[in-house]
Parts: sequence; C-alpha cells; structure tokens
Amino acid sequence: MTSILCSGSIALDTTRTPFKTVENVLGGAASFFSLAASFFASVHILSVVGKDFPEEYWKLLEKKANLNGVQKKEGKTFHYDSTFSFDLYHRQTNKTELNVLGEFEPVLTGEAKKCEFVYLATMPPEKQLKVLQEAKGRKLVFMDTIEFYIKTERNALLKTMSHVDGVVLNDAEARMLTDEVNLIKCGKKIHALGPKIVIIKKGEHGCLLFHDGKVIPFPAFPLEVIIDPTGAGDAFAGGFLGYLAKIFKQDTRPTTQDFKTAMAYANVMGSLAVEDFSVNKLASATKEEVEKRFREYCELLRI
Amino acid sequence: MTSILCSGSIALDTTRTPFKTVENVLGGAASFFSLAASFFASVHILSVVGKDFPEEYWKLLEKKANLNGVQKKEGKTFHYDSTFSFDLYHRQTNKTELNVLGEFEPVLTGEAKKCEFVYLATMPPEKQLKVLQEAKGRKLVFMDTIEFYIKTERNALLKTMSHVDGVVLNDAEARMLTDEVNLIKCGKKIHALGPKIVIIKKGEHGCLLFHDGKVIPFPAFPLEVIIDPTGAGDAFAGGFLGYLAKIFKQDTRPTTQDFKTAMAYANVMGSLAVEDFSVNKLASATKEEVEKRFREYCELLRI
Repeated sequence: MTSILCSGSIALDTTRTPFKTVENVLGGAASFFSLAASFFASVHILSVVGKDFPEEYWKLLEKKANLNGVQKKEGKTFHYDSTFSFDLYHRQTNKTELNVLGEFEPVLTGEAKKCEFVYLATMPPEKQLKVLQEAKGRKLVFMDTIEFYIKTERNALLKTMSHVDGVVLNDAEARMLTDEVNLIKCGKKIHALGPKIVIIKKGEHGCLLFHDGKVIPFPAFPLEVIIDPTGAGDAFAGGFLGYLAKIFKQDTRPTTQDFKTAMAYANVMGSLAVEDFSVNKLASATKEEVEKRFREYCELLRI
Repeated sequence: MTSILCSGSIALDTTRTPFKTVENVLGGAASFFSLAASFFASVHILSVVGKDFPEEYWKLLEKKANLNGVQKKEGKTFHYDSTFSFDLYHRQTNKTELNVLGEFEPVLTGEAKKCEFVYLATMPPEKQLKVLQEAKGRKLVFMDTIEFYIKTERNALLKTMSHVDGVVLNDAEARMLTDEVNLIKCGKKIHALGPKIVIIKKGEHGCLLFHDGKVIPFPAFPLEVIIDPTGAGDAFAGGFLGYLAKIFKQDTRPTTQDFKTAMAYANVMGSLAVEDFSVNKLASATKEEVEKRFREYCELLRI
C-alpha cells in the first residue's frame, strides 16, 4: 500500500460562525488532510502538539494515521481562532497562537522517509523544502501555502515550489503569487515556476486543474447546508493525493483521466469536511458514504 | 422546426473595458439571445429600434432571425453605456438611455403567436406577462429579469414568474429575490414561486441548474482571454432554449439529461459571446465551431 507523508499543523481551533461557536476543537491542515487521505492510503503525519493536546483527539488521529512523527512538546498546541462571515465564505483571523508550532523542526522517522507521496501543508517554505529533501522515497510531492508566505518569504517559497510536482492554492493565493487576475493565466504562470500539476481552488465555485497543457474546471459538490468551511482545502488535497496513492504503480505515471478522478474524490472529501465543525464528518464518514457521494458527483457531471 | 419567440431589447452599446472602448455597437438581450439560439432553431424577435439603428446591424440580425416583430420607431435606439472593472467581472452603468424602448408596446404577429418556445428577456414584468399571454402556441416559457425590477416591481414580477416554466437569473439577482445567501436555498425558494426549472448563473464560476428535485452544477468553459462579458447571459439562454427547441417533440417532456445537454450548449454559447466585443463572435461562429466546443466541454467534464 502506498504511503503518504503529510507535514503540517495540528491545531486546536476556535471557530465562530454566525450560527454557533466551537472552542478548542481538533483542527490544523495535517488533521484534515490525513483523515481525508486515510480513506484511500496509509498516512504518516509529521507535526507537533503541546502537552495540552487532548487524549481523545490523539486517539482519533491515531486510529486513521501513523503518529510516530508527531512530536509532543512542553507548552501549548497551536491555536487558531477565527470568525466566518454570514455567507460562510470570508474568514477573519482573531488570534494565531503558534505555541509549540513556532519552534517546530520536522524530523523524519525511517518509515516517513520511505513514503512515496508527500504533502507539504502550509509551513515556512524552508521547512517544507527540508521535509521534501529528507523524504528520500518521494515519487510525487504536492505543496500548499498561504498569502503570508507569498508576501514575506517569496524567494524561499519559489525555491521550494521549483522542487514539487504539484501545488494546491486558492484563487486569492494564485493571484497574489502571479500578479494576474485571470485564473487561467495564473495557472500557466505557476506551471512556469516548476509544478507540472496546478490546482486552483475557488471554494463553493469549484476548482481548476492544470495539467499537460489542459485546463479542466470542476464544480463544487452542491451543498445546501454548510456548517464550517475550515479544513475544506486540506480535506480536498487529502482526497486528491489519497486517490492517486491508491492507484499508484511504480513506473507508471497517472493519466489526465486519473487526475480527473482524483479531483472528483477531492471535491467529495472537501464537501464532507464542511458539513460539520472540526473534523467531525471526516472522522465519522464511512467508505460507503464516500463512494456514494463520488458516484453522485460523477452523475451530476455526466452529459 | 420549432420556433422561439424572444421579446427583449435591441441596443446600441458603448462598452468600456480596461483594454478598449467600443461605441454604438450592436447589443441588447434580444440580439445576443437570438444569434445564439439561431444555431439551433428559428427565432422571432419582438423588439423596437429607432430611426438611427444602422442598416448593417439590421441586416446582420435579419440573416439569423425573423424581424417582423421588430418595430422601427421615430427616435433613437435604446443606448447602454457601461464600464467593466479590471477583472472584467464587475460592470458599472454609465448611462441608460431607454429612448424608443421606454414606450415599447410588444405586438405579436400571427407567426409570433404560434411560436412553441418563448424567451422573455428583461423588460417590465407586466409587459413580459402580456407577451406570454398572447403567445398562444407556447409550450415552454423562460424569463430573465434584473435587480431593478426585483426592487421596484416585485409584485408584478412575482405574478409573471408564477406563469413561466423557467427562469434564468444571476447569483446577485437570485439572492436579492429570495433574501437567501446560499444559492441552493435560493434555487429552491424560486421553485416555490412557480418555475419548475431554475438556472442561476455565476459568470466565470459557472452555473447551477435546479430541476426535478436535483441541483446540478456546471463549470464555465475555461477561457484565458475574455474580451467583453456583455451579453454572455443572454447568449447562454439562447444556447439553452435553442437546443431544447431543436430536440422538442410534441407531448414529450425534456428529461433531466436533455436539460444537462442544453446547459452544456448554454455554456458553449456564453463562452463564445465573451471572446469578442458586441455580437461579433456569435455572428461569425460556424456550426462546426459550436459543435467542436460542445465536444470539448463534454470531454472536460467526463470523469
């Protein structure tokens, strides 16, 4: 079975929506990514938590992912506090307390180094590069980033980006990175920075896949009730890389059609993530639910 | 051959984009709709122009549509002057000179009354209702409207809407009409107002089709270069109704799959419309180009 190494944050989130507030719930890119990817492949997490990290969250993650690369440090877990707008589309950060994440130095275990797939969730770009370089078994590497690093560490970011196979960004990040408005131009410019596979996410408006000279649009799975958009992008990435890991064969490259199927699973996992707070839905969903929604999504698109 | 009656404006547009300005070019909902629909069915236009309406535009429309219902009045043609934002997504109206359109009283010719399909492009809702009621041969009626009538003539609008089979609105209009943020809730509320088929357009983000209890999302055809978004929505409607007219059979209702194919043609016609100013691309495109893009669109969506 192909393994995915995911480096990134594990967080305690306080999430305020117009309808409800939840405090200190399980969050962080690595949590969302890993729970989504675990439906398809085995996942190793590279992250750090503090002494305050609840045992029940540890057990929840441990059921779905290998936590040997998750350090437990003196101090508090990374805490992210944000408020969503009425339309659940715009998020305002109230507080970012890095705590133990601030000093995090990723150390790859022997088994982590052997993982064929690597997902570099948002971290300082030089740390992403370090993980990539130490992941000696890597066959396919994807990365994410945020506006903060595009603004403040552009050079380091471009260096890391030149080493990865693919990037997953949202529309605002893609525009900021390339200084282009049209997202198709953005995607092509990001190709020129190195990544052969570019995914630009547009939240409820779906996403664009750039690969092999093609631009392929995908609508989001239509949802009438969205509870909490936190983690949708990382769950999306987990579905995408998870499916690719599942079908991975040594010495065979995924086809465009494989990438499209992976994008469908990505949309499915993103849509599940937003149907409840925290990782609740990803943690409770069954493989049957995932497959059912995948079939529904494909049926929606069939002309 | 099934005929479509389209009532709506024929305009002279002044369109200002960050890259170029064109003055007094052929515009208006009826022009865009009819040229797009003419690829699939015969179209009768119900509209009005002034004495200043250029002969070359008349001839252009006459080649593709029946103009017996287009009145030529003393005075000037409806003139619309607008400026697009840098991202070509937001439009600001500079001037709306209704001119002869202000006094327009639609009068249906005998052949117009026999049309099986009716498209009520934006007009005062009571005039839309009058056209609908006089179109005795009607089998399928769609309507569009704008924020102005949602704000100022809500009751008349709701009355007209209760008589049509389908509506085509953009996201802002749908939200304003229903007082809902989530577009899926919007679509369901609009169903409750009467229309069995609801289409919510999201510009470059594609659109949603509501029909028979289903919500079906469609991405827009990806375009790297957009010249002028004017008329995209009406060209979209022209592709949609045009295709449905082409496959129309007495006493057989279109299936969800028919509506999906129609939505694909709608996206194709909308994407063609924005690739040049005015109706230029719609007027010059060939059936082969339309079919080629349709196949490309279907291939993009195939998982």
